[in-house]
Amino acid sequence: MAVETAWVGRLVSREHKREDTVISVGKATIGGPHLTVIAGPCAVESREQVLNAARLVKASGATILRGGAFKPRTSPYSFQGLGKEGLAYLAEAGQKTGLPVVSEVIEAGDVPLVSQYVDILQIGSRNMQNYALLRRVGKSSRPVLLKRGLAATMEEWLLAAEYIMDAGNPAVILCERGIRTYETATRNTLDLGAVPVVKALSHLPIIVDPSHATGNSAYVLPLAKAALGAGADGLMVEVHPCPRQALCDGDQSLSPEEFKELMDQVRRLSGALGRGVVKP
Amino acid sequence: MAVETAWVGRLVSREHKREDTVISVGKATIGGPHLTVIAGPCAVESREQVLNAARLVKASGATILRGGAFKPRTSPYSFQGLGKEGLAYLAEAGQKTGLPVVSEVIEAGDVPLVSQYVDILQIGSRNMQNYALLRRVGKSSRPVLLKRGLAATMEEWLLAAEYIMDAGNPAVILCERGIRTYETATRNTLDLGAVPVVKALSHLPIIVDPSHATGNSAYVLPLAKAALGAGADGLMVEVHPCPRQALCDGDQSLSPEEFKELMDQVRRLSGALGRGVVKP
Amino acid sequence: MAVETAWVGRLVSREHKREDTVISVGKATIGGPHLTVIAGPCAVESREQVLNAARLVKASGATILRGGAFKPRTSPYSFQGLGKEGLAYLAEAGQKTGLPVVSEVIEAGDVPLVSQYVDILQIGSRNMQNYALLRRVGKSSRPVLLKRGLAATMEEWLLAAEYIMDAGNPAVILCERGIRTYETATRNTLDLGAVPVVKALSHLPIIVDPSHATGNSAYVLPLAKAALGAGADGLMVEVHPCPRQALCDGDQSLSPEEFKELMDQVRRLSGALGRGVVKP
Amino acid sequence: MAVETAWVGRLVSREHKREDTVISVGKATIGGPHLTVIAGPCAVESREQVLNAARLVKASGATILRGGAFKPRTSPYSFQGLGKEGLAYLAEAGQKTGLPVVSEVIEAGDVPLVSQYVDILQIGSRNMQNYALLRRVGKSSRPVLLKRGLAATMEEWLLAAEYIMDAGNPAVILCERGIRTYETATRNTLDLGAVPVVKALSHLPIIVDPSHATGNSAYVLPLAKAALGAGADGLMVEVHPCPRQALCDGDQSLSPEEFKELMDQVRRLSGALGRGVVKP
Repeated sequence: MAVETAWVGRLVSREHKREDTVISVGKATIGGPHLTVIAGPCAVESREQVLNAARLVKASGATILRGGAFKPRTSPYSFQGLGKEGLAYLAEAGQKTGLPVVSEVIEAGDVPLVSQYVDILQIGSRNMQNYALLRRVGKSSRPVLLKRGLAATMEEWLLAAEYIMDAGNPAVILCERGIRTYETATRNTLDLGAVPVVKALSHLPIIVDPSHATGNSAYVLPLAKAALGAGADGLMVEVHPCPRQALCDGDQSLSPEEFKELMDQVRRLSGALGRGVVKP
Repeated sequence: MAVETAWVGRLVSREHKREDTVISVGKATIGGPHLTVIAGPCAVESREQVLNAARLVKASGATILRGGAFKPRTSPYSFQGLGKEGLAYLAEAGQKTGLPVVSEVIEAGDVPLVSQYVDILQIGSRNMQNYALLRRVGKSSRPVLLKRGLAATMEEWLLAAEYIMDAGNPAVILCERGIRTYETATRNTLDLGAVPVVKALSHLPIIVDPSHATGNSAYVLPLAKAALGAGADGLMVEVHPCPRQALCDGDQSLSPEEFKELMDQVRRLSGALGRGVVKP
Repeated sequence: MAVETAWVGRLVSREHKREDTVISVGKATIGGPHLTVIAGPCAVESREQVLNAARLVKASGATILRGGAFKPRTSPYSFQGLGKEGLAYLAEAGQKTGLPVVSEVIEAGDVPLVSQYVDILQIGSRNMQNYALLRRVGKSSRPVLLKRGLAATMEEWLLAAEYIMDAGNPAVILCERGIRTYETATRNTLDLGAVPVVKALSHLPIIVDPSHATGNSAYVLPLAKAALGAGADGLMVEVHPCPRQALCDGDQSLSPEEFKELMDQVRRLSGALGRGVVKP
Repeated sequence: MAVETAWVGRLVSREHKREDTVISVGKATIGGPHLTVIAGPCAVESREQVLNAARLVKASGATILRGGAFKPRTSPYSFQGLGKEGLAYLAEAGQKTGLPVVSEVIEAGDVPLVSQYVDILQIGSRNMQNYALLRRVGKSSRPVLLKRGLAATMEEWLLAAEYIMDAGNPAVILCERGIRTYETATRNTLDLGAVPVVKALSHLPIIVDPSHATGNSAYVLPLAKAALGAGADGLMVEVHPCPRQALCDGDQSLSPEEFKELMDQVRRLSGALGRGVVKP
């Protein structure tokens, strides 16, 4: 069946640009023939924790380090992240391991600050339609990782990317992370149909976050492999040196051993899928 | 059945404050024995349009005037509102009719500007979890009308109110406006179960917006009456002097005659419900 | 806005029949100017229980008695109802109080049996698209109360009614009972938007079941009033002589006193809505 | 994180039976180390059509033939299938190609008839909670392919399987086929999280139907590969000799060439996943 494209934005669309967009950050690339794996803790908790995490994810083959410093939390009384201090620890861990880093920015006014420390600016699910923030990162020279909103349609998601591109920034990475449905056996429902639909409608790269989607480390590996089967350009996975001690989302964080196993299986799968894995 | 309250925030909860919160703005009150009706156009389009709208909604009995100046839109290419100019028109219409005014603020940095023109700051659905914005209006002296997020649980919504109250502002008005479901016969699914649940868990006033919920003016009157039956403290309704010419959401805007009919029926119903209607 | 009708079936549609369908059962009528209240226990548990329930709901003004004998249950190990014995108790309670009775039929082969005992055949949510059952009750001379499926669109629901009408039975009563959404504060999300939409598209009567929708007796009264505000032709409410001892759905059952209060408020509201209440 | 199992039924659970259930039908097996591919047209349209379909799916490597004879349709005016005549054509096509066949049964009374023609009885989404039908196929000696209900939780789905097993039939194959969500870019939202969750909770085999999930042949291949990545035991795919002429669901049917490509990729992937493919 022909794919319906009337609803898509301009700059994000395949009509505007036929070939896939490939985004380079340090030695890593997102989009293109190679798979990318972004890994690290949900939240930066200490200098030591993020440095340990960086070393172990690099050892297993991750090419980009993640870590939250400004954490949007449902309750005002939950741990809100280490802020600027956390960014500094993350940047240091990135430098020591040679890994580019990504972290979330939650307020337009913080974009200059966060940009000093990170290589990729992340927009979280809650802010997918925070248009002031989208326009502001659209004026940044940093690539933007745009998570799908909790109950966003693919159309709304692509139009959020359009806001960023329309403001001047062509380097947008889409990230599917599960949508809200009636099902409670997993935290969210990972919508892997989004991968081929986005690929049909847009030239932008798309990666998948199975950690937030499932909320359960036991399900991260099968859904990571499913994401690659669906054609995703990479993964974003939560890894913690000691998941049981995590201040945030420990239930869904992989242990170092689990992450190593995931990378082994990703490598095996990538050949059968006709794609390599970016080397760290 | 006993109502489960463990999950609610502190300051928003009935445990923290047993009696209903009543918020006064000019001659209008929200919460308490009387019903409040907020009405006006989706977007301020011109000085004349909003002044006409103000006069006609006041004539039929509305007590607060609404009108959007900063419009968050799914596409960057849709009409984004008149901004500061629109706020000035709205404020003038409010002064000439003696109606307090409410308008949306979409960015933390705009709070001082918007506060100069409006009596109530509105937080829209897309920004319900924009915590920087919530904290900022929490430091304002203006009451805040907090719309439920498009796919927010009642718990998340009450915790968003908690962010505002925790920042220092006790005057929060909750507004149910429909949630996202699989059903497409109406734009959203109005969740009137939220009214008694919120009343059980919280002391804050709750009003209902049947216009955004249905997206169709033909369904606004029955759902307005349903909202009052459920125990809502008031309504927020879109009214346009000429719905067919509206720049935004004309399909769901009531005509002057339809709004007059709605107010007549609201008055008739309010007696049977043991509540009066605030006099304009 | 004009109402879109292209998708509706033939026999159920307003195009096919402009005037509202009114269904008479004994002294009760469903549809038309008067409101109908169907009440009784979720499940028939004993001869005494259903007779007590019948007497008390009649005393407060209910016009039709409900009670489940064949109970579709999610688990095969839950109480499945008293079956034929339960039907006999229900019919006896109806005869002694002069109330017509309604009960669910869950299998096409049971239609003759259930029809011997009841005045109205109920099709439950799980069977809304059990087409063999729909066709079979379509050949019955009993009116059919058709509950909306748990995640059925209004279109699918009306087309299920079309199956019944197409098989020869014009007496279909639609019953909104909440749909499945992501929200867990209530058991289901009562979709009162369905009332005006169904009224616009179809001539069939529509009633509302706030008991199954909320799953919590504390929310039944406000949502019952909301349903009437939305224009519903009546209510279906669970009432148990002693809710704490109910074998099924006790949390959502009204006590005799709560049901009396509900009927008092329904009567008060019906005048303001320009509708009377059917006298028992 | 430990997997929560309290809610699962008895006979379906891993607690009841640790090792994976493997179901044999003719030369095909479902569950166990090898992947199974069930393929064929949505509906049996003619003797020639289903025989052509059987030959071409076998030539590409399918091991079981599917084809609908009794078709549950949302509208009573849609094509309802060829019934008994269709079953005879399907059975003949199966015999001529040596492929076991599967077809849907939609009414308890039809189970003996359908069982004469098919090797596996399919229960469709609309009937997942048709308990009379579940109990009836539970008394059959044929394996049962149980599709997940349109908006069923995994718990409800496993409990539906429990009904079948409790009635005496241990041979149940679960089939994920997409759930109903707010997203409209695909027909349903394929919930691949169900695969590892079901594998954790139950010993039953689980396969995936990407055709009904997406409603678009362009998305079937990527989601088929995703399903295998997630750990599914096989696929159920719609294939039509000439999709443009299909009487039912042509938009989602693969052409013979597309199905051959799918089988080639399945074979390539199965090695990397450590699983073979059942030989036809």
